[in-house]
Amino acid sequence: MSFATVDDVLSGKTAVGEQVTVRGWVRTRRDSKAGISFINVHDGSCFDPVQVVVPNELDNYESEVLRLTTGASVAVTGVVAESAGKGQSFEIQAEKVHVYGFVDDPDTYPMSPKPHSMEYLREFAHLRARTNVTGAVMRVRNCLSQALHRFFHERGYLWVATPIITASDAEGAGELFRVSTLDMMNLPRTEQGDVDFSKDFFGKEAFLTVSGQLNVETYACALSKVYTFGPTFRAENSNTSRHLAEFWMVEPEVAFADLNDIAYLAEDMLKYAINAVLEERADDMAFFQQRIDKGVLDRLNHVVSNKFVHMDYTDAVEILQNCDQQFNYPVSWGTDLQSEHERYLAEVHVGAPVVLKNYPKDIKAFYMRQNDDGKTVAAMDILAPGIGEIIGGSAREERLERLDSRIVEMGLNADDYSWYRDLRRYGTVPHAGFGLGFERLVTYVTGMTNIRDVIPFPRAPKSAEF
Amino acid sequence: MSFATVDDVLSGKTAVGEQVTVRGWVRTRRDSKAGISFINVHDGSCFDPVQVVVPNELDNYESEVLRLTTGASVAVTGVVAESAGKGQSFEIQAEKVHVYGFVDDPDTYPMSPKPHSMEYLREFAHLRARTNVTGAVMRVRNCLSQALHRFFHERGYLWVATPIITASDAEGAGELFRVSTLDMMNLPRTEQGDVDFSKDFFGKEAFLTVSGQLNVETYACALSKVYTFGPTFRAENSNTSRHLAEFWMVEPEVAFADLNDIAYLAEDMLKYAINAVLEERADDMAFFQQRIDKGVLDRLNHVVSNKFVHMDYTDAVEILQNCDQQFNYPVSWGTDLQSEHERYLAEVHVGAPVVLKNYPKDIKAFYMRQNDDGKTVAAMDILAPGIGEIIGGSAREERLERLDSRIVEMGLNADDYSWYRDLRRYGTVPHAGFGLGFERLVTYVTGMTNIRDVIPFPRAPKSAEF
Repeated sequence: MSFATVDDVLSGKTAVGEQVTVRGWVRTRRDSKAGISFINVHDGSCFDPVQVVVPNELDNYESEVLRLTTGASVAVTGVVAESAGKGQSFEIQAEKVHVYGFVDDPDTYPMSPKPHSMEYLREFAHLRARTNVTGAVMRVRNCLSQALHRFFHERGYLWVATPIITASDAEGAGELFRVSTLDMMNLPRTEQGDVDFSKDFFGKEAFLTVSGQLNVETYACALSKVYTFGPTFRAENSNTSRHLAEFWMVEPEVAFADLNDIAYLAEDMLKYAINAVLEERADDMAFFQQRIDKGVLDRLNHVVSNKFVHMDYTDAVEILQNCDQQFNYPVSWGTDLQSEHERYLAEVHVGAPVVLKNYPKDIKAFYMRQNDDGKTVAAMDILAPGIGEIIGGSAREERLERLDSRIVEMGLNADDYSWYRDLRRYGTVPHAGFGLGFERLVTYVTGMTNIRDVIPFPRAPKSAEF
Repeated sequence: MSFATVDDVLSGKTAVGEQVTVRGWVRTRRDSKAGISFINVHDGSCFDPVQVVVPNELDNYESEVLRLTTGASVAVTGVVAESAGKGQSFEIQAEKVHVYGFVDDPDTYPMSPKPHSMEYLREFAHLRARTNVTGAVMRVRNCLSQALHRFFHERGYLWVATPIITASDAEGAGELFRVSTLDMMNLPRTEQGDVDFSKDFFGKEAFLTVSGQLNVETYACALSKVYTFGPTFRAENSNTSRHLAEFWMVEPEVAFADLNDIAYLAEDMLKYAINAVLEERADDMAFFQQRIDKGVLDRLNHVVSNKFVHMDYTDAVEILQNCDQQFNYPVSWGTDLQSEHERYLAEVHVGAPVVLKNYPKDIKAFYMRQNDDGKTVAAMDILAPGIGEIIGGSAREERLERLDSRIVEMGLNADDYSWYRDLRRYGTVPHAGFGLGFERLVTYVTGMTNIRDVIPFPRAPKSAEF
């Protein structure tokens, strides 16, 4: 007897006639009039459960097997056989069924086999991984994360753990979560009556990071090719299907690279990760195609087999102004594009992912490299059909005097950026990078519509359960 | 002309006679009387810099090359040649030296070539990756993290992102960082005068996680083999060389596994990761061996080539009580072992990593599986020579009534654990897991003595700069 996963059996890794033990949870049970029960057992190793055929001769057939309900846990020992039924190639003919645990009151089991809404499943985040849909999402999510690490590792990039807690609000992007150990019922005060953060754990006010970019630039300016893959935070009070308060970001940063270099890096990275899913998770993708998003496989195949189209922001504005489409928001040079504009460009005008480049400097961050026209910066967004912006990046301003002039222009305090400015004082190099919201990628690849369903325990306003 | 990394050149991936461009930073410059300069250039791709031989015929030899100092950034185009000097096999005979950036006032450049203490380097966390030692640490750190992801992926484990922010203080381990967006100068109050956390971002008091274990158990009880790899937090006011307020943990959790299964999993994992470093980072390890810890290679080779020794806590107490060694702390059954005891066992008594098992239940957490003796739980620590405890794990109590009795015994509130108890109510399965402090592993493998030097931006009391 040897242990096997459901995937081992269904994919033919175990031989017909071999005795194996499979351990997992019951998805369904069906009893035939002939005194045989058919139990579908899943263990997370692949999308499909394996069918276990249980004859009524087993000692515990009446006492236990006939009491098995969805969610019960079992170890089944039996012989692998070719399946006579449709759909699957192999099944297990049980010689022994060991029950680890039944389900307390099957009538109230939250993951009962009837259909559940995604909203309902979210309330049971500790159990929803047992469902088809969440199991499939998490296998695809894992596949994407492994592929991203592999992609960068194969190309000589070093993973750098940028800090989660930071006292440096250097980027000033979005609202911040404060991290503190002060006793809120008894706050220390300065003589001026302010909260005395010098008494706090870190000796000053500290926050959760919104991006590892500025930190990881310090590593790119020493080790050349680096990337982050870690959690980031936004305390925005937005309850949408596209936002999380806590989400994972992938941020490569590349010394000696320019805007085009990182646009091609992003394209290669996305294609590599999507190809990994198409090759390794065909079972889960078939489910998404059938039940979640009928266009998902076409979309992914289209992305991996076509070149991304590069386009200047200025040209895009002209296209949008001269097209036949009616938009809710007018388009004019100097304003940020809205989602409807981005989708028109990617879905209608080009019909493929678009790399939109060289945005007006006034709508972009202080650290982006200024172009010679005096009006634009070397920034890019990648817009994907069906989702809109999925990646944002830029060349970084490596010229100290130019960086300083932007810091002044934007009313920032140069002292707050002394360590960032040091990178430009000591052997500065051109460099560039981008950020990928990992959960955005998972929604894009699976076709799931709400970002809260592609992360195990979503955090959002009023929601930090478990 | 094609771009090459320093590693490409030194490892012979580029051909002798090939023209390449290498981009990086100057480590040292030496000028010969014959009118030739020797510049060592590093780019983070490997430990050693490449020697660039610059003849004085170059146009910018006087104006720029002779002004190059440590830290300046250059692109060198030239021909790969066999090196006549000792040490390295290949060098570059420069035809062009482009300077990206000089160093502002080389006399005050914080990373000047003179020796610096580790304490000094910590103050310049944004520049220290340019030094030999921090560069080597970060390459080894990356190698370990890639190896760990690979190890689990090859074995069918899914990476699960457990939440960083949690309103569930379920484990109660250690002191917590509060996460809040409340205006501290104007705190909302309840009628009773307490802080009204229902007005906070998450609608209740929320904290940074101390461990993903309880969360990831919910995924193990659905997908069978899972692991976390993410940041965790301890608000302990301990300024030691072994503690960080923010550190990364690896926590596999395995359904249907018992204590021995995960002890062997941990052994395989450590050997796999260490072997990856020995194979892939021989250059950096040679540096650690020579400059940081003369015993490090012996220690690592010994770990990978010997079986870990399993020992019961009860037997260990007897050994410690009957040995000739004098300890500062007495040993008696029922008390936690001190570092001196752990090191004696691993270093003197066994001389190899020790898996210490079955600890008294009163010194262990509520979720650990109770043994039949009524006194001990199925917990294990792995003690490594030279560092002490590196891994801690246990079988989890999967029997609801036993779990509940421990919750009561320890004065915990069962309501706080309702979702954790659900795993035992609905198809419970035996399962087990462990936690590895990732930075502990990096110190162990490199021989570095302070944990703050193996993470890019260390967080500790009074320290969250950058």
